[in-house]
Amino acid sequence: MHLLVIYDVQDDKVRNRVANACKDYGLYRVQYSAFKGELSLNRMQELFLLLKKILGVDVGNIQMYPMCEKDIKQVKEIENVHFL
Amino acid sequence: MHLLVIYDVQDDKVRNRVANACKDYGLYRVQYSAFKGELSLNRMQELFLLLKKILGVDVGNIQMYPMCEKDIKQVKEIENVHFL
Repeated sequence: MHLLVIYDVQDDKVRNRVANACKDYGLYRVQYSAFKGELSLNRMQELFLLLKKILGVDVGNIQMYPMCEKDIKQVKEIENVHFL
Repeated sequence: MHLLVIYDVQDDKVRNRVANACKDYGLYRVQYSAFKGELSLNRMQELFLLLKKILGVDVGNIQMYPMCEKDIKQVKEIENVHFL
């Protein structure tokens, strides 16, 4: 199943741990605070519990969006990258 | 149709303009750089073109995720808000 994870986490260390957990689950970064990838429903639930544990009582918001094949095909993107 | 818009935009002014455009289209903020809401396909396409125009040649990445009813029901969220 396709999954998008987006997060707002105040503490730098906690935010990095959230990003690392997403990477560990095979997701890839699509924006500074957004990861995307494919996960089974089980692994998705595991990741949810892990992210909950990582955030703990710290201030933050983490959202997980499972997406079907049809929806994923309709994603639109605007990107400008400047090479310095 | 449900829509999630996420963005990474370098310039503060441009980022604010992106946020304001999302608000103008009736979306509401769900994270610092994420808006959600309901839009018709036409309005979604209009918003896409507007965001493209706003970003112009500035550095940034904007992603629009249309989501079906089934997917939107599966969204999971972890939130800790501290009242100071």
